[in-house]
Amino acid sequence: MMKEALLHMLTEQEGKFVSGQEISNRLDCSRTAIWKHISELRKNGYTIEAVQKRGYRLITSPDAVTAEEVSLYTGDGTFGKKITYRESVNSTQEVAHALARDGAVEGSIVLADEQTGGRGRLGRAWQSPKGTGVWMSLILKPNIPLQKAPQLTLLIAVAVSKAIEKVSGLEAAIKWPNDILISGKKSAGILTELQAEADSIHSVIVGIGINVNQERQHFSDEIAEIATSLAIESGQNFKRAEVVGVLLQEIETLYHQYLENGFGVIKLLWESRAFSLGKRITARSVTGAITGYAKGITEEGVLLLEDDHGVVHSIYSADIEFPST
Amino acid sequence: MMKEALLHMLTEQEGKFVSGQEISNRLDCSRTAIWKHISELRKNGYTIEAVQKRGYRLITSPDAVTAEEVSLYTGDGTFGKKITYRESVNSTQEVAHALARDGAVEGSIVLADEQTGGRGRLGRAWQSPKGTGVWMSLILKPNIPLQKAPQLTLLIAVAVSKAIEKVSGLEAAIKWPNDILISGKKSAGILTELQAEADSIHSVIVGIGINVNQERQHFSDEIAEIATSLAIESGQNFKRAEVVGVLLQEIETLYHQYLENGFGVIKLLWESRAFSLGKRITARSVTGAITGYAKGITEEGVLLLEDDHGVVHSIYSADIEFPST
Repeated sequence: MMKEALLHMLTEQEGKFVSGQEISNRLDCSRTAIWKHISELRKNGYTIEAVQKRGYRLITSPDAVTAEEVSLYTGDGTFGKKITYRESVNSTQEVAHALARDGAVEGSIVLADEQTGGRGRLGRAWQSPKGTGVWMSLILKPNIPLQKAPQLTLLIAVAVSKAIEKVSGLEAAIKWPNDILISGKKSAGILTELQAEADSIHSVIVGIGINVNQERQHFSDEIAEIATSLAIESGQNFKRAEVVGVLLQEIETLYHQYLENGFGVIKLLWESRAFSLGKRITARSVTGAITGYAKGITEEGVLLLEDDHGVVHSIYSADIEFPST
Repeated sequence: MMKEALLHMLTEQEGKFVSGQEISNRLDCSRTAIWKHISELRKNGYTIEAVQKRGYRLITSPDAVTAEEVSLYTGDGTFGKKITYRESVNSTQEVAHALARDGAVEGSIVLADEQTGGRGRLGRAWQSPKGTGVWMSLILKPNIPLQKAPQLTLLIAVAVSKAIEKVSGLEAAIKWPNDILISGKKSAGILTELQAEADSIHSVIVGIGINVNQERQHFSDEIAEIATSLAIESGQNFKRAEVVGVLLQEIETLYHQYLENGFGVIKLLWESRAFSLGKRITARSVTGAITGYAKGITEEGVLLLEDDHGVVHSIYSADIEFPST
């Protein structure tokens, strides 16, 4: 906590010096303690200049998703106030599930610099190479019926799309139900998992993966055809901690709006950002494939697909493809 | 497995002797091995007579829910073929959740002679005193949308009600969503928990508690007013393993019918056994209470309640009370 407070002070000064005396006064600690924390911050990748009689100033910060770095960007909300950071983890979802079972508060997040067994939808793998993206799990405890849980996936998709646009200026469209596309390629994915009873939700564990700073060579040729990153699309790198902070604020705002006013506003936002609406698509699932026009989503987040005979199908779970016609 | 096969042979004979030679032949094992397993069965509460030249015969079986005893009653189905038995456990749900995460097959069950932290709906406690009831968790892996999960609670309620009637001859009614009543008192409860994504179910962990052999003195005065057992209502005791076996067969039959033909038949069965339908009830939840007439359930297992102004409310989660008017 001291280290975090110290980092906040240095960051506030925006590159100007802050004296040891002032730090000592404001954080109520000794010069020796300050020096210890400065050393730790340096070990964590912060470049901090120390000049006699002038004090300390922050020169550069690492692109880290540690608790102290992310806490600089989470703002006034309650989401992200409790951060569990792991350098490497099998899956942030696993860690978050365990935390939720142990009673973690709403808004708790798990972040990792690398996932070795990152998961996507329907048990698929999600590539999460070290230091390149946002690999995060967020714990929500909404008092909503189970039937409405898919609405949360759509809410999160809107938030991710908005956060990407805010941070990078890139246009980020949503492909039902949970892919975020930039220039038609996947740049982020959402995995919404539940701990629930048949008639009440205990916890929603939202996994969010965002490809931030991967370069072209991070992807195999095959993957490069369908996936991209903010860096590839914009030609610049982004602070992952800032992406996390902006994203958490977007989610928290939409989430409270949703709990108070229902799905209506989220539905409009989602539809305005939906890539596939009005397009001819194929919905492929284990039970078969249906091709037709994507008409919209229902109040429960179900995709409505009108086939060539005019029959409207309710799609609960499927992969969407765009047939080449 | 040998012990289980030996018990099956002895049980098949229905109290007649079976020779050591025959056992040895059929199970392909030595006389010494047989003797070892007979000793183990005796330790587990089986009374087995051993007479020179005639062999062994089973006199009495314990009222146990061990894997070997339950396996005598599970029939030809696949449910209950994989049994995890614990003498005492915090909650069979916890054990089953862990098994499901580790990939347990559909139809796997967890049984305990006693639960020290048995759970009911909405985090409530479920009393599970030693040796008196069926405390069981069943793992299902249905390929159905999340929205339909509440249908499974209703399906299980029908199966529990049918199994109780089959075993005891008592009439067992269903109180929405998941209580089984005998003479208006609670005799069984169902807790349906999920491991799921927003658009697909990984596992459904169904917890079932049935009060079988509790006597009146097992209940406090307060509980005795609202709870009962098969023994109290019928004046006789039942083999819990048989209750489990009959129940698993009822569930498996209904479950396959449901997966093939949908909720229609289950809905009719449920409604024909529903205690509250057509009655004046109060549905109480965290958001308030609504009193009116229970009209029926929807295709998604939602209770329809018509208030005094003729407005029909969809009740997703609530406790049902019967107002004294």
